[in-house]
Amino acid sequence: MKPDSNILPAPLRGIIPPMVTPLLDRDTLDVAGLERLIEHILAGSVHGLFILGTTGEAPSLSHLLRSELIERVCRQVAGRVPILVGITDTSFVESVNIACKAADSGAQAVVLAPPYYFPAGQAELLEYLRHLTPELPLPLFLYNMPSYTKLVFEPETVVAAAEIAGVVGIKDSSANIVYFHRLQALLKKRPDFTLLIGPEELLAETILLGGHGGVCGGANLLPQLYVDLYNAACSRDLQTVERLHKKVMDISTTVYSVGRYESSFLKGLKCSLSCLGICNDFLAEPFHRFRSAERSAISQHLQNLGILQDN
Amino acid sequence: MKPDSNILPAPLRGIIPPMVTPLLDRDTLDVAGLERLIEHILAGSVHGLFILGTTGEAPSLSHLLRSELIERVCRQVAGRVPILVGITDTSFVESVNIACKAADSGAQAVVLAPPYYFPAGQAELLEYLRHLTPELPLPLFLYNMPSYTKLVFEPETVVAAAEIAGVVGIKDSSANIVYFHRLQALLKKRPDFTLLIGPEELLAETILLGGHGGVCGGANLLPQLYVDLYNAACSRDLQTVERLHKKVMDISTTVYSVGRYESSFLKGLKCSLSCLGICNDFLAEPFHRFRSAERSAISQHLQNLGILQDN
Amino acid sequence: MKPDSNILPAPLRGIIPPMVTPLLDRDTLDVAGLERLIEHILAGSVHGLFILGTTGEAPSLSHLLRSELIERVCRQVAGRVPILVGITDTSFVESVNIACKAADSGAQAVVLAPPYYFPAGQAELLEYLRHLTPELPLPLFLYNMPSYTKLVFEPETVVAAAEIAGVVGIKDSSANIVYFHRLQALLKKRPDFTLLIGPEELLAETILLGGHGGVCGGANLLPQLYVDLYNAACSRDLQTVERLHKKVMDISTTVYSVGRYESSFLKGLKCSLSCLGICNDFLAEPFHRFRSAERSAISQHLQNLGILQDN
Amino acid sequence: MKPDSNILPAPLRGIIPPMVTPLLDRDTLDVAGLERLIEHILAGSVHGLFILGTTGEAPSLSHLLRSELIERVCRQVAGRVPILVGITDTSFVESVNIACKAADSGAQAVVLAPPYYFPAGQAELLEYLRHLTPELPLPLFLYNMPSYTKLVFEPETVVAAAEIAGVVGIKDSSANIVYFHRLQALLKKRPDFTLLIGPEELLAETILLGGHGGVCGGANLLPQLYVDLYNAACSRDLQTVERLHKKVMDISTTVYSVGRYESSFLKGLKCSLSCLGICNDFLAEPFHRFRSAERSAISQHLQNLGILQDN
Repeated sequence: MKPDSNILPAPLRGIIPPMVTPLLDRDTLDVAGLERLIEHILAGSVHGLFILGTTGEAPSLSHLLRSELIERVCRQVAGRVPILVGITDTSFVESVNIACKAADSGAQAVVLAPPYYFPAGQAELLEYLRHLTPELPLPLFLYNMPSYTKLVFEPETVVAAAEIAGVVGIKDSSANIVYFHRLQALLKKRPDFTLLIGPEELLAETILLGGHGGVCGGANLLPQLYVDLYNAACSRDLQTVERLHKKVMDISTTVYSVGRYESSFLKGLKCSLSCLGICNDFLAEPFHRFRSAERSAISQHLQNLGILQDN
Repeated sequence: MKPDSNILPAPLRGIIPPMVTPLLDRDTLDVAGLERLIEHILAGSVHGLFILGTTGEAPSLSHLLRSELIERVCRQVAGRVPILVGITDTSFVESVNIACKAADSGAQAVVLAPPYYFPAGQAELLEYLRHLTPELPLPLFLYNMPSYTKLVFEPETVVAAAEIAGVVGIKDSSANIVYFHRLQALLKKRPDFTLLIGPEELLAETILLGGHGGVCGGANLLPQLYVDLYNAACSRDLQTVERLHKKVMDISTTVYSVGRYESSFLKGLKCSLSCLGICNDFLAEPFHRFRSAERSAISQHLQNLGILQDN
Repeated sequence: MKPDSNILPAPLRGIIPPMVTPLLDRDTLDVAGLERLIEHILAGSVHGLFILGTTGEAPSLSHLLRSELIERVCRQVAGRVPILVGITDTSFVESVNIACKAADSGAQAVVLAPPYYFPAGQAELLEYLRHLTPELPLPLFLYNMPSYTKLVFEPETVVAAAEIAGVVGIKDSSANIVYFHRLQALLKKRPDFTLLIGPEELLAETILLGGHGGVCGGANLLPQLYVDLYNAACSRDLQTVERLHKKVMDISTTVYSVGRYESSFLKGLKCSLSCLGICNDFLAEPFHRFRSAERSAISQHLQNLGILQDN
Repeated sequence: MKPDSNILPAPLRGIIPPMVTPLLDRDTLDVAGLERLIEHILAGSVHGLFILGTTGEAPSLSHLLRSELIERVCRQVAGRVPILVGITDTSFVESVNIACKAADSGAQAVVLAPPYYFPAGQAELLEYLRHLTPELPLPLFLYNMPSYTKLVFEPETVVAAAEIAGVVGIKDSSANIVYFHRLQALLKKRPDFTLLIGPEELLAETILLGGHGGVCGGANLLPQLYVDLYNAACSRDLQTVERLHKKVMDISTTVYSVGRYESSFLKGLKCSLSCLGICNDFLAEPFHRFRSAERSAISQHLQNLGILQDN
């Protein structure tokens, strides 16, 4: 059943944070931390919530834990904002299973990156979407994430997929904004098709040049900052945009740049949330939380940025 | 509980076919085909059976179907050869779940490629193995498959992993035999540590130069051919080795080379089994079975090779 | 016309087109076409000219032809705008040779991508720059072009390189604007260090968010368009920016998107210049000019865009 | 000594060492070292000599130095073995220039990897060969080196290229021996077409399974070892093959495995030649010679292997 159309705007605009998944250990939710985190994010006036994405470590979590998370988040958010649920999986059947759970729990949409073990061609990928979408009980956002899936939704594939009933938008995390601008140009006759940007470093320009919103990981930490930047860009207040974009970049070049590159974003983000007392910083394998040296560096960065009070 | 050591030799030698998973549709086993396929393979005097690997399309299958497959295969094989079960998953917890199912069903070992969504570093990969192995009820073979997982088990990581209790061998599907020879050289003081080669095109030389065995996909189709080649290489009968290696290459350059490259091996193999009446050729998404033009090409190749009778 | 061509502004701001190299055949300049092209570009009020870059097919040209091109361009431009000369080569010595030729001919700066055969590490790359820069008679711009060189100038390497006397800026053609924004943030205390963007699709946002200029291939064709967009972005005229950015994207999704992807930009650009009667469309190996079907498509696109008159 | 150096056997069989280029600095040959090195290699009864390949650092050398090297090597070898000269370059014209120099100096053949800056498609690559080969004054060997050129000669491209007059063989340095075996199978009706393997770790199996020879970098150091292994494999003396293959692997896992991976082979090889007093260990940029810690490690390895006497 399709959700109430009032709940999921077309296009979906604004800041939709990709929520981290607070964990006590590899298979146990940090329930208290989760509750605090949800309220912390919603207090920032965000426009939606995306769970079980890359920032949510979905591929590292058991299916049972994913189910529990969907239930808890939907119950607590209780319709205050639309909830998008990641259903990316190498198995078609498991993707449908998660989507059904999401619909049953009251979520508004699902989000799917390409299956990421077998290297599908673009024709196979499009056929995959044509088979999958009718099986889904909720509208579908595509999720372009080539650095992790090693497979891009080529622009022509997105244009063709946008014709499938139920495919309502795309979140692009490629960081290749030429790609994003091409999507905008190719889909200019589809103003209802949502175009969201992943990397928060690109939020300012995305909104200034006609994109609809951002899935900003940093909005776990400072939701209001990204909402303010979004609003400033919408109202063409360039001076504020420049000031807030600079803040975003200051976070990016400090908090996300401690330790090894590939996972430093995720580790830095969870570590920061722990420093602020919001939730646990446990990371599921193959990663692990920052040890004390990196934690000190993060803490220092947060103090320098005025996010954490000196103690 | 560790299995009877008589059942899993150290090292494990010989031909251990990576079984395809016969399917009626994306979530239904072809049970009759599965039974025929198992007997067809075992009739070839193979030395083991590897299920739920890449050739078995494991990442594309639901967890329920994987469970059913493990049960059925273990019941039917009934100790005639050791069974190795693939437990590769992006989720640590799900890998353990599959391993427990394998042990409960009577399998002899499990096989694990690196988690393949998040890009772990080698130190993280080794830590992953150190955390995972104690949770596993069966001995573990590593599975080097960089073209699909995008992450190699570096030789130094394998050497360190070989020190972990329960890690008993590696299957290398990289096709980079410099890598394989380096493993052999670095592990020469560990004659009990099993070194298996993936690509069947490399079986002859692997055995001639001291490797222990091969996980040959073609042994789904012609198990005796690969067993004969293995035996000839073991007994240093170079004339027979050359003759059978040539047959292996003839299959590789015809049956596996129809249609698109990346998935042509899997499609050609399942199509051939269907042409021979052994099992259904359905492939789980993101792939699909060969259409009629490619099926005709496969059928013609099988006739030319004397595998299929002209009709 | 600039008052003193010897002065290279710090930072260098504006539109610096990467000039295509007009050819009659693989080793002969289209001299008349070259003269027309230079005047066509300069008539667009550009702020510099970059020759022997990727768009200039430098790696495909003989060293003699590169020398002749440098001479002819410097003589004809005659100080009207600064000239930047690409010296990228796998051989240190040959890079220095081209730089000396550039200085002797009156160019203002040189541009260097990493050597692209042997895979240098970042430390080796930095050492390379430390050895090379003192041998160069002109200021050096780095050139980040990972899709072709397979080697990125990591942000930390750029920050360190910016400390070397003679290194005055970077041109980033990665299309990864997170990278570009990180450079901006890390170099915020070096307002003299030039930050130029390669892909013209990113010109609008680059200038809006503090970048200095663009090396826009399309400015071979429509120099005034990119200069106007640059000026609009500098003066914060967002309405004009949006209108012109849309034109840039219309060119990108039509003229650059005919035929095979990887080389379609270069082929489409040279073909367009030929359609407009400016210069020959011969491409040096490994590429070749568009055949008639693609040429018709380009011609049609140019008419639709109002660049070419219907005939 | 060969009776007639003008005759290039078809196929070319045996050990053809890819000679390192002894350097005093980045643009000066170590002439005395070069003379010693040539005699050292020829004393090992090798079957040819390949200069200006990857091991010869050709892409890092100036064109003048390459010319001087060709002249000196041809003069000194004086027909004792066939000389193959690398002409790989991103510029078609420069490749022809080097080939002409090689012919004038008395070399027997040239060797070409794909142009490695612009990403050519397979059709473009084949057209490139069709244009280039008629311009070459000497027979041409293809050179498959995807890790550095990022472009593979696909098997179908090799089969088509083998039909071009003047294309006489291929050297495969991919380390993917499935690829090599496929070439053998596809070219089985062309017994005159030479198939050489690059990585010396694969020499044993290549010869056992019908390949023609090896371009073994280690033969700069120990030419007789690789010639002995080649001869043992030709005469099907498996016991000797196993013993010598083990020596080859011992060198590979020690001398080539010091320091950073990508360039450790080249650095270890030049360092070893310097330890033995044969030639200077200077490496052209972007690399540099091993510093003292790594040199000590190399020296220790050479002593352990019995190549260098304890002092």
